[in-house]
Amino acid sequence: MTTFVLFGGTGDLAKRKIIPALYSAFLNGRLDSNFTFVGAAREAISDDEFRERVAASISSHAKPDGVGTPEQLKSFLAKTLYSKIDARVDADFAALKNKIASPDSNATLFYLATGPDIFVPIVQQLSSHDLVGSQARVVLEKPLGRDAQSARDINQALRTYLKENQIYRIDHYLGKEMVQNLLALRFANSFLEPLWNRKWIHDVQISIAEQVGVEARGEFYDHTGALRDMVQNHLLQLLSIVAMEPPVNAAPDSIRDEKVKVLRALHKFTPDEVIKRTVRGQYRAGAVNGQPVVGYQNETGVPAHTRTETFVAIRAEIDSWRWAGVPFYLRTGKRMASRSAEITINFKPIPYSIFGTSQTNLRSNRLVISLQPEESVQLFLKAKEPGEGIRLSDVALNLDFAEASTSRRVEAYERLLLDAMHGDLTLFVRDDELGAAWDWVDPIMSTWQTDTEGLKSYIAGSWGPAASSYLLAQHGSTWGEEFVED
Amino acid sequence: MTTFVLFGGTGDLAKRKIIPALYSAFLNGRLDSNFTFVGAAREAISDDEFRERVAASISSHAKPDGVGTPEQLKSFLAKTLYSKIDARVDADFAALKNKIASPDSNATLFYLATGPDIFVPIVQQLSSHDLVGSQARVVLEKPLGRDAQSARDINQALRTYLKENQIYRIDHYLGKEMVQNLLALRFANSFLEPLWNRKWIHDVQISIAEQVGVEARGEFYDHTGALRDMVQNHLLQLLSIVAMEPPVNAAPDSIRDEKVKVLRALHKFTPDEVIKRTVRGQYRAGAVNGQPVVGYQNETGVPAHTRTETFVAIRAEIDSWRWAGVPFYLRTGKRMASRSAEITINFKPIPYSIFGTSQTNLRSNRLVISLQPEESVQLFLKAKEPGEGIRLSDVALNLDFAEASTSRRVEAYERLLLDAMHGDLTLFVRDDELGAAWDWVDPIMSTWQTDTEGLKSYIAGSWGPAASSYLLAQHGSTWGEEFVED
Repeated sequence: MTTFVLFGGTGDLAKRKIIPALYSAFLNGRLDSNFTFVGAAREAISDDEFRERVAASISSHAKPDGVGTPEQLKSFLAKTLYSKIDARVDADFAALKNKIASPDSNATLFYLATGPDIFVPIVQQLSSHDLVGSQARVVLEKPLGRDAQSARDINQALRTYLKENQIYRIDHYLGKEMVQNLLALRFANSFLEPLWNRKWIHDVQISIAEQVGVEARGEFYDHTGALRDMVQNHLLQLLSIVAMEPPVNAAPDSIRDEKVKVLRALHKFTPDEVIKRTVRGQYRAGAVNGQPVVGYQNETGVPAHTRTETFVAIRAEIDSWRWAGVPFYLRTGKRMASRSAEITINFKPIPYSIFGTSQTNLRSNRLVISLQPEESVQLFLKAKEPGEGIRLSDVALNLDFAEASTSRRVEAYERLLLDAMHGDLTLFVRDDELGAAWDWVDPIMSTWQTDTEGLKSYIAGSWGPAASSYLLAQHGSTWGEEFVED
Repeated sequence: MTTFVLFGGTGDLAKRKIIPALYSAFLNGRLDSNFTFVGAAREAISDDEFRERVAASISSHAKPDGVGTPEQLKSFLAKTLYSKIDARVDADFAALKNKIASPDSNATLFYLATGPDIFVPIVQQLSSHDLVGSQARVVLEKPLGRDAQSARDINQALRTYLKENQIYRIDHYLGKEMVQNLLALRFANSFLEPLWNRKWIHDVQISIAEQVGVEARGEFYDHTGALRDMVQNHLLQLLSIVAMEPPVNAAPDSIRDEKVKVLRALHKFTPDEVIKRTVRGQYRAGAVNGQPVVGYQNETGVPAHTRTETFVAIRAEIDSWRWAGVPFYLRTGKRMASRSAEITINFKPIPYSIFGTSQTNLRSNRLVISLQPEESVQLFLKAKEPGEGIRLSDVALNLDFAEASTSRRVEAYERLLLDAMHGDLTLFVRDDELGAAWDWVDPIMSTWQTDTEGLKSYIAGSWGPAASSYLLAQHGSTWGEEFVED
């Protein structure tokens, strides 16, 4: 694309993630030579003031290999402009149009890093100023709606101005190397797919644990909660990639066709099932990494007595031939014991141990795909300890990418930016996926509203309420960090 | 055991392998405190002369961590005696008896590191001197016979004096960690066994390549050949462990019951099949590691115009539900390009590539169990290269034992010595296994005798005759070292 317009250009996400990602793409020669970057936000600042913020964002948030030389930064800032934008003000969009290199070529990517309430007004304005022709693309940040109905309303309104294949709903977990690698691991290898079903898999766990609290986002977060903030998007997206059938080919819509099938096959909970299969929690004061931290209700911007959840654990099931009866445990929380995001495939235990009962309490095989804090793939299996006799122990087969390849690692946001610029929709969420995800989440939200007993508290720095462990123990599982090998 | 008697105690194998292994067991406190080591051979030397040879053997052939302190060596030599033995001389055995700590306790292990022609005379003498009571054990080195008939004759004669469970037929490949680990990998894990059959495995390759020639063993070797020296024992033993069904339990006879079933299920070749499915070769002058080496017929002790094979490749098949149609490629040779012993399980290619044809010529998944020069397990699979798009590459999941365990590594000979002392027969070859292996080899030997065209020559330092590659190419396979990734 020739022009990249970033709405919310002075916001937190722009500063921490999007601008450093764009600059890294620039440093690596991935942007057109006649490329222009236009920041857009409500503040009335000059191009030069915005350039100072861009430089500050890069120096604070770029990875060590994404800083470049002073000359490179200067060259990037020379391509950087700013446009004051209020979605209600026509003249602002006329001014924006003047900053866009070749508005008629449609070669523009609009990135809406704003709240969902102004997605439609912005796109409406872009359309009435002839800025979203057939080749223009619009990237939308989460959250996209508050429930199934509001998400459908937004999508429907957007479709007045845009075709579905111009809309790039971003989920930055999909930009992580290991998520894309999961597609390769499953469908480029013959040794995993035969095992990838209810016959050999005991359960699947998808966990995103954060150590941070709500930071400066208390007011926003309290209106959102963990279910909307993490489960409806990131966790269900990961689940859909783990569980999907082999797609017809690797084209974006072939993959998204299979993902949406999984989301539609998710067993929808009755109110009674919501009570039995979900755990929600809110953190109390505690300590993280040895530092005392306040409880959720004492965070800035969070009202006292709020019942918003900061932790969710769910035992999901997929009603399909491949997965019937296999629990998919989803978990996310703030102020957890450590920061980690991982997908664990727990294989069933061996049917019978020829090595006698002394070795039977060993943990069964598992494939662990880590997304945070480091990206890795590990296959844990049993091997014989060196030496006399047969004593088994748990060892890991490690996939070492650093060793395996000299290719440049690309951060999730940069990868997704480049994909959007190249028109590759594979790692973006389609409207029907979004709808299906909300359809599954809606009954949970509505039952929680009437279930006044269900919110548990947990100590900041723990792994969440005890009920989360019980949810798995009922079905003979434990969360990865709870397993103690004999 | 209290006493360890080593026939062939001044021989090459004793010097290079058995004495250093025994000493390592001593250093690691694995021998009884009242243990005695008696070397026995035809040479008339004194205890002290033998002790000097033992000390020399240790200083030349022990691993760096198997050398010990001068005090430890002194203490070991104090337990070392020598007995001049001629199998035909009664009085020699009477003298030997006097050197055995407590001949009546039967706590004696006799290790026959001699030619098979004197196995029976020695055991006969031991028996007539009441040295092989019900608790005594006899270890037999390879080769055990020259064909099915001679092996049966020896076994039958030994059974006059010994029960089968007193006979420890050694095959030092079975003492290697990775061979034992193969049992653990297959039967303590749930993720391999579902794939371990004709549905998912394309072919199995078992290759033992040596760089050495016949060394000082020219005369012996020319009477033996690669088929008898390596295939009948080591390669078929490895094959039987790869291919066996799950045993009832891990007891020695349960495992050997399953191994012998595999050996009996090996498809026996008709003369026509011998021609089509076997390749034999003899090395010509060439270069190994950049050093010129003579051809086999110019080796010391080897007659000119001999037709003995120094290389064998065979496409074996197992007539069973699990393995029907899966080629088991066996290969061994002297003066090969490099020294390696490995078992490769080649999985079938994926049925269809969603990633398009550009990625279809990638090598399919394989499990490689290396026994030499280093022991390791590697699972090769396809993963996505980091960065944009989906570009697949071949990466290895490595099982790293050094990292996984702090247990002491035990060399194959020491492991087997200790197992024999502890009465563990698991890693020793039972009479029916030996018979079944010879029964399969016999038709190959007899066809080769009449097939004057079949012996190919190959250049020392190569991977054997071209016919060996053709043997696999006919069935869509290549030897591991021949595969070139695009």
